[in-house]
Amino acid sequence: MIQVGVLLSGSGTNLQALIDACQGDFPARIAVVISNKEEAYGLERARAAGIPAIHVPHRGWGSRAAFEAKLSETLGEHGVQWVACAGFMRILSPAFLDQWPWRVLNIHPALLPSFPGMDGQGQALASGVRIAGASVHFVDSGTDTGPIVAQAATFVSPMDTRDDLVARILTMEHKLYPMCLRMAAEGRLQVKDGAAMVQLAHGEALLLLDPALLADPTQGA
Amino acid sequence: MIQVGVLLSGSGTNLQALIDACQGDFPARIAVVISNKEEAYGLERARAAGIPAIHVPHRGWGSRAAFEAKLSETLGEHGVQWVACAGFMRILSPAFLDQWPWRVLNIHPALLPSFPGMDGQGQALASGVRIAGASVHFVDSGTDTGPIVAQAATFVSPMDTRDDLVARILTMEHKLYPMCLRMAAEGRLQVKDGAAMVQLAHGEALLLLDPALLADPTQGA
Repeated sequence: MIQVGVLLSGSGTNLQALIDACQGDFPARIAVVISNKEEAYGLERARAAGIPAIHVPHRGWGSRAAFEAKLSETLGEHGVQWVACAGFMRILSPAFLDQWPWRVLNIHPALLPSFPGMDGQGQALASGVRIAGASVHFVDSGTDTGPIVAQAATFVSPMDTRDDLVARILTMEHKLYPMCLRMAAEGRLQVKDGAAMVQLAHGEALLLLDPALLADPTQGA
Repeated sequence: MIQVGVLLSGSGTNLQALIDACQGDFPARIAVVISNKEEAYGLERARAAGIPAIHVPHRGWGSRAAFEAKLSETLGEHGVQWVACAGFMRILSPAFLDQWPWRVLNIHPALLPSFPGMDGQGQALASGVRIAGASVHFVDSGTDTGPIVAQAATFVSPMDTRDDLVARILTMEHKLYPMCLRMAAEGRLQVKDGAAMVQLAHGEALLLLDPALLADPTQGA
């Protein structure tokens, strides 16, 4: 059983999806949830699930290195082997990442490399794309630039509000992240020559499609 | 019946897809094909279809403005109302585009805004994305930056060679471009506030999916 540490800053809906996945037949468990924001609702979700929920503020340490050392120490104390960022709004430095070599995943609400950084969904709407989605990728020291593990796609409707698109992508995120964490926990995921390499299990995909894409010919197929 | 001018520089497979579409019940006909390269096989395709095929070299005019004036003049002489770039490897200046205000379309082998410019397919492979495709967009004076009309998506396999991906995307391009040209020819396509606006016909989509995405769960669904 692989021990996972989750880093977040906000409401933690992706954390919830991972918690729910861990209730079933799943090769990982969440050993600790860390938030740099004390008020993050994700900490409540962790507590409700009986998972240690720890606030590590990003200010007050005098340096980013000290903040990140505290993160690493806390993860280590809980026996963490893989780290999953789930709405964690801090960039991790190479010094931190070197302590977790290709062991940190992130989920981003866009079809990377399009729309990295803040508000991937709003960026997608503003640019007029017809397809959007989410990406799980290894974290490197850039902003959403690390090797892509898998992606999920959905449509963008000209009628969409930002909330519509956020919700549609979120539904896909909640399928995508547990799938990728399973790959990691089962030792089927690594980085080779700068690219993510996955040994696919039966029925598994590196691309998930929103079923609505297939159902409504005026939007998808 | 709308008159279309096609600009190209190469083999013209997208031209062929448009020629084939025009054989059927289609609201446009191709009035002229212009290539800046004399040896472009697209000119042969045009001649074989009985379409005026004209070589307008991009060199020898002394200025880009003079080259583009010749393009515009040639299009005008053939009664062209919409211009379709199909592998045309020259950037069009604002002066040219002002003569064809939001009347020039292009097809690019990537899910824009990812991978504009040269070799969108090779860029996609190198970046490790799991989804790729093509975009039809209005041409502005940037490189593949104009308002997106519609997109087509297919999978990327870790086993893909560049040729594999090129071919898979091309199959989708050949469905996407005639669909978008039909929208234009039927007066259902315009640009408003910098975004492409389409009145969809029954069964029409702004996003086409490769059927293989749906068929093979290890690659797509």
